[in-house]
Amino acid sequence: MSSNQDFQPVTESASSVTKFQQNPYGPNPADYLSNVNNYQLIDSTLREGEQFANAFFDTEKKIEIAKALDDFGVDYIELTSPVASEQSRRDCEAICKLGLKAKILTHIRCHMDDARVAVETGVDGVDVVIGTSKFLRQYSHGKDMNYIAKSAIEVIEFVKSKGIEIRFSSEDSFRSDLVDLLNIYKTVDKIGVNRVGIADTVGCANPRQVYELVRTLKSVVSCDIECHFHNDTGCAIANAYTALEGGARLIDVAVLGIGERNGITPLGGLMARMIVAAPEYTKSKYKLHKIRDIENLIAEAVEVNIPFNNPITGFCAFTHKAGIHAKAILANPSTYEILDPHDFGMKRYIHFANRLTGWNAIKSRVDQLNLNLTDDQVKEVTAKIKKLGDIRPLNIDDVDSIIKDFHAEVSTPQLRAVRRDDNDVNDIDIQEPSNKKTKVE
Amino acid sequence: MSSNQDFQPVTESASSVTKFQQNPYGPNPADYLSNVNNYQLIDSTLREGEQFANAFFDTEKKIEIAKALDDFGVDYIELTSPVASEQSRRDCEAICKLGLKAKILTHIRCHMDDARVAVETGVDGVDVVIGTSKFLRQYSHGKDMNYIAKSAIEVIEFVKSKGIEIRFSSEDSFRSDLVDLLNIYKTVDKIGVNRVGIADTVGCANPRQVYELVRTLKSVVSCDIECHFHNDTGCAIANAYTALEGGARLIDVAVLGIGERNGITPLGGLMARMIVAAPEYTKSKYKLHKIRDIENLIAEAVEVNIPFNNPITGFCAFTHKAGIHAKAILANPSTYEILDPHDFGMKRYIHFANRLTGWNAIKSRVDQLNLNLTDDQVKEVTAKIKKLGDIRPLNIDDVDSIIKDFHAEVSTPQLRAVRRDDNDVNDIDIQEPSNKKTKVE
Repeated sequence: MSSNQDFQPVTESASSVTKFQQNPYGPNPADYLSNVNNYQLIDSTLREGEQFANAFFDTEKKIEIAKALDDFGVDYIELTSPVASEQSRRDCEAICKLGLKAKILTHIRCHMDDARVAVETGVDGVDVVIGTSKFLRQYSHGKDMNYIAKSAIEVIEFVKSKGIEIRFSSEDSFRSDLVDLLNIYKTVDKIGVNRVGIADTVGCANPRQVYELVRTLKSVVSCDIECHFHNDTGCAIANAYTALEGGARLIDVAVLGIGERNGITPLGGLMARMIVAAPEYTKSKYKLHKIRDIENLIAEAVEVNIPFNNPITGFCAFTHKAGIHAKAILANPSTYEILDPHDFGMKRYIHFANRLTGWNAIKSRVDQLNLNLTDDQVKEVTAKIKKLGDIRPLNIDDVDSIIKDFHAEVSTPQLRAVRRDDNDVNDIDIQEPSNKKTKVE
Repeated sequence: MSSNQDFQPVTESASSVTKFQQNPYGPNPADYLSNVNNYQLIDSTLREGEQFANAFFDTEKKIEIAKALDDFGVDYIELTSPVASEQSRRDCEAICKLGLKAKILTHIRCHMDDARVAVETGVDGVDVVIGTSKFLRQYSHGKDMNYIAKSAIEVIEFVKSKGIEIRFSSEDSFRSDLVDLLNIYKTVDKIGVNRVGIADTVGCANPRQVYELVRTLKSVVSCDIECHFHNDTGCAIANAYTALEGGARLIDVAVLGIGERNGITPLGGLMARMIVAAPEYTKSKYKLHKIRDIENLIAEAVEVNIPFNNPITGFCAFTHKAGIHAKAILANPSTYEILDPHDFGMKRYIHFANRLTGWNAIKSRVDQLNLNLTDDQVKEVTAKIKKLGDIRPLNIDDVDSIIKDFHAEVSTPQLRAVRRDDNDVNDIDIQEPSNKKTKVE
């Protein structure tokens, strides 16, 4: 038929596979301002996270969390404003005295009353924020841009005079007037802040919008750009990544993303994104195998469960089920995995006890049970398993019983002995990775 | 000081607020191929979702889910391959006989054995898929691109001959050779498929990469483009949105995102994204207030909890805590909300029983308790509440007791009576939205 002619027959070569070793998920070469390979983390579990509905951290818990984050390797730890309450101030002082490697920040309103208290706590830096959108200017603080600029200059110069870091951030940046934003950022950059911050306070931004704003801002200021993304519309991880592509350097995260409403960019989820894009940098800088412990620490403290679909640590994040997936995973895990569970101290599971299972998954299980069946026999027993799986949910014991019964029917003790001399190359090739890497639920 | 001069004083005008009424989160005017205002949903809870570790849907449950999705308004419902198991085939036939408004699809391997069974089930369309990445070609089916093209043409012409819809999708598209991909898509488009599919099977793609691939493909094919995104690195919602910006028309979703590993683009999360970008289209087409019920149906069926941080339905998605947030939300919910909880049949909560609370939130509570305190008195009682909140977690009863005790101290029955004549305009302005819209946990 004529349509057959439309396809241009191709010659296969090995070069495409080789090409992928250059990491197609790495920074886009066209993003010459990209910080994908040079990013920093500001963990705000003890600030934004305190604004999570369920959060109440006493001093001891705050210290435990700060130490765990420091051990993980976050670059900065941001704490609740010392003016929020008397205990907030004392906790801030206590964490500053721990001598952590991470720099300690506190987050205040752009006001001298707050700044005077903040600089006395012993923090390494102060993050000031003020709402610049019309919404916030009208319904929150009621100030105009000229007042904001004046306050910002006063606070920044005061904090700088104390020899500590200063970040100036707008709030609700994506609903602020672009000219107002660039004007104020340019002003504070000239005074000499360490960072300016962009905040998607309501969680409305989309990735390409983020990229554009960061790129534009990057042409206006010479200091680093920090970004803070809420997750109301589910884009907080993608927005963070795209911000780095555009030239932002620092991303605000919280463990499990806890914060106001449904929170911000989660630490673990961002690590999943970054290990794909910048594997060497990410693995060398952060102790990724600690993610599970830190998430459990926070989940327990704020009385939530780890979401079933959490990146990396969700109970099914490395579980493969469909027969076609299981087959390929057994041959080479990279076929259906972009993340290696071992990088995070996690394990891979092949879910074979269900009607979608395939004979490769069952063959792997037969091997784990140290039984000997031919491929045709495995296909036969797989059909039995799928049939029962059509009637009800299966567990591993169900499948093992079917396999063992079947094996008893078709096999003899003599056949078991033969297994030891079995050197069918295909069989070994398929089983080897499963012995080495596959754990079964 | 000189730095003061750097800020360009600005004249405030009302125009910026007006501008926002044109929806800054709507489609980017530069995306002339955008389908943000013209997208369709293919729900794959009964196909991809069946590959979720915990999923076992019996016939009755499948029918219940299909009806709920149809009632919600999804455009297509995709079902597990009828060759997966005997019951899968019977269930597919049963759902086709329901006479739903949504079109029914089934998802098969690109193979005549599967196609022959699929077209006899009564489906409105068949989704065929084949792995095109080197990984899948080497470790899954072992076929080269010429073989893939040949099979695709045979299957597509067969399905078309039966007068039903046909989609051809590559698998693991983002790790496939671009030339191979465009070549095969161009071929199948010329034969005349309804849709071609891009699948991020391993969940590695990032938004700008998605945009580029969709835009490129859009220049090669004339049919619709469907996209399928796994969520391993937390970008499935953002990638779906960016695909629509680039010209894709259909997005694969599953309720709660259930699927292989940690799943795909979740229906609810995508709705949160789309109501921001295309509010009229989204609200007119889909019954958004049904999201909670559908999510509960699936969560129960697969025995998971709704993630605490789920967009829209997470228990804290509309909970505001920090004093500064609560204050502005009470004045105008749009200050800290891009989603209106009422669009989803949900309610807003102001979390006032904590040390981060502010006097505006407490003032709102005082009003709800029908007590009368001056602003200075509210500030005084707020300080007491924050002090107790420093020592331990508070519940609403704690706060109410403090407020009532305080009120008893400062107040008299005569003052209560005065309350009815109170017409302090500021007071009413602030309280009005809270009476109308604020529910307290």
